[in-house]
Amino acid sequence: MSTPLESPLPPLLRAAAGLPGDRVPVWFMRQAGRSLPEYFEVRGEGSILQAISDAERATEITMQPVRRYDIDAAILFSDIVTPVWVSGFGIDITPGVGPTCDRPFTSAADLERLRPIDDDDLGFQTDTVRALVDQLPHEVPLIGFAGAPYTLAAYLVEGRPSKDYAKVKAMMFAEPELWHALADRLADYAIATLRNQVANGARAVQLFDSWVGGLRPEHYREFVQPHSAKVLAAMAELDVPRFHFGINTGELLADMADAGAEVVGVDWRTPLSVARERTGGRVGLQGNLDPALLSAPWEVVEPEVRRVLDDNGGHPGHVFNLGHGVTPSANPETIARIAEYVHTHGTAMGDGSTGAAG
Amino acid sequence: MSTPLESPLPPLLRAAAGLPGDRVPVWFMRQAGRSLPEYFEVRGEGSILQAISDAERATEITMQPVRRYDIDAAILFSDIVTPVWVSGFGIDITPGVGPTCDRPFTSAADLERLRPIDDDDLGFQTDTVRALVDQLPHEVPLIGFAGAPYTLAAYLVEGRPSKDYAKVKAMMFAEPELWHALADRLADYAIATLRNQVANGARAVQLFDSWVGGLRPEHYREFVQPHSAKVLAAMAELDVPRFHFGINTGELLADMADAGAEVVGVDWRTPLSVARERTGGRVGLQGNLDPALLSAPWEVVEPEVRRVLDDNGGHPGHVFNLGHGVTPSANPETIARIAEYVHTHGTAMGDGSTGAAG
Repeated sequence: MSTPLESPLPPLLRAAAGLPGDRVPVWFMRQAGRSLPEYFEVRGEGSILQAISDAERATEITMQPVRRYDIDAAILFSDIVTPVWVSGFGIDITPGVGPTCDRPFTSAADLERLRPIDDDDLGFQTDTVRALVDQLPHEVPLIGFAGAPYTLAAYLVEGRPSKDYAKVKAMMFAEPELWHALADRLADYAIATLRNQVANGARAVQLFDSWVGGLRPEHYREFVQPHSAKVLAAMAELDVPRFHFGINTGELLADMADAGAEVVGVDWRTPLSVARERTGGRVGLQGNLDPALLSAPWEVVEPEVRRVLDDNGGHPGHVFNLGHGVTPSANPETIARIAEYVHTHGTAMGDGSTGAAG
Repeated sequence: MSTPLESPLPPLLRAAAGLPGDRVPVWFMRQAGRSLPEYFEVRGEGSILQAISDAERATEITMQPVRRYDIDAAILFSDIVTPVWVSGFGIDITPGVGPTCDRPFTSAADLERLRPIDDDDLGFQTDTVRALVDQLPHEVPLIGFAGAPYTLAAYLVEGRPSKDYAKVKAMMFAEPELWHALADRLADYAIATLRNQVANGARAVQLFDSWVGGLRPEHYREFVQPHSAKVLAAMAELDVPRFHFGINTGELLADMADAGAEVVGVDWRTPLSVARERTGGRVGLQGNLDPALLSAPWEVVEPEVRRVLDDNGGHPGHVFNLGHGVTPSANPETIARIAEYVHTHGTAMGDGSTGAAG
């Protein structure tokens, strides 16, 4: 990758800084993976963690959507549980189920099983990130990937994906000291993995707190925000823009912004105009097309993409994305057309172009 | 049941009418069922629909929480899919999975499989409701139970519980005529089952649209609201208060109120004060303790119950409830204490008592 000093800031980084630019940046959560036929050619058998920990495959999978689509970011092919997996805690991703632990985290004794990790544990990730920044054009930054303490803790405590997260909440409510010790340790995991990614060339980070929207605001602020803030503060020292995302977070958007993000992801339930109001305009917004639309006919999709752009109302701090990840049933051609449409019709750049109302 | 003319309106019905009273009414979604040891003594083997369609068992199961707790409503022991099940469409509830269809609804031809139902199909329900109103005290109204068109359609189209409801949304987006025909038919099912319940003595109805919170507001208004409104309008003719509930509906609360409910259920994510603001105070609110708290120690639960009462800020239109159903791991003693606490400390009655702020 060549990054001459005179190169303009890529659209993704301009939007993250709230700066007007000449295109609305767009990428798609889970743009790499199960929706692409070329993915299945390289993925291999077994746990997805095998592919993630094979630098050659992880690099190829990360690059596939960048080659296929005109998108403004690559996102490291990884998983929320990767750093815990390398620690040897005993977590895996069971096909058709999700993250599973044979021995879930249930007591203070389990803290011992969460040993600190460092760059030596993340050799495959170092290699993947270096290979990626070597291949990616300057205009397409690599976004680092990490799971936030709450969502990671949910997997460790529940032992598998849950409908109601009753066990992790029970721990939070009944054993707050144990909870905070666990979340603090998981914040260190996120910091370790993101530091490694940024040190090797990632130019932004996204902290995924997928399931945090199951908490009401007071519980988020008491039990989660301090730990996410610790991760995001560590990233501030590295001078990369920080994206922060979860689903069902309509009531948490302001608190997630306060945790220290430059850009807050918004799921499709909350119109961007509402999200902008709730966050007081102090952060950029990422989102928020309903991923279910990716298997709909284009004549249905187009006005919905237009609606998201309109909802944003001309604010320069907008990164177009889905409101959650690309679904397996998504049509890649639809994704390609969305990226093209956003680049052609998106005028939410605060630069005097005729943007939408607002 | 004796209902002397001079009897005061029960607390539940007073709150639904927005009238001050001398206690905050409280009941718990899924108060009957898996959290109670006495339930397992009568439930029997096989599909839950077997217990629902056995009037003696369904009556007993509905009454169990009324005997155990000091609560202000009974809710008919039923399921969202009951009316479709009696129609012979081919849906069942698979233990450990949820509603499943061998042949999901995929095309216009499947409309034929959804024959209209009437009271003859609902003999067990007639018997159950009559037995219940005979046993329930005047102060404890029976709430009728029905699934709303969207959630019911989701089960029929997906064929099983789904993470992303991609199939039902795909139908909605790509085949809007088919969607509306399906939803209209399912509205008729809800009307038929609720009319039967009210005709036999249910004194309120709750329309459960559990999964509708997966839709953004514009899609709710276009694809769902007209069909839910049809059901609720039919209930208005019967002069019973209408409760309407779903989870993840923070952005939909005003639209759900506009569908024609006297009381809108609020999940635990949205503070009642925020919900009141969004609905402009024109409806009562029901909720909204996080059900995960039902397995927490009482010293944790008590301030959370207090917080819900405080969030309501003294408005008379409040029915205390959970933000979703009772979880299997709930502690029945905690439920009993919550009901007692709400009755003792709840002062949200707009009657000049020293209520919380607001």
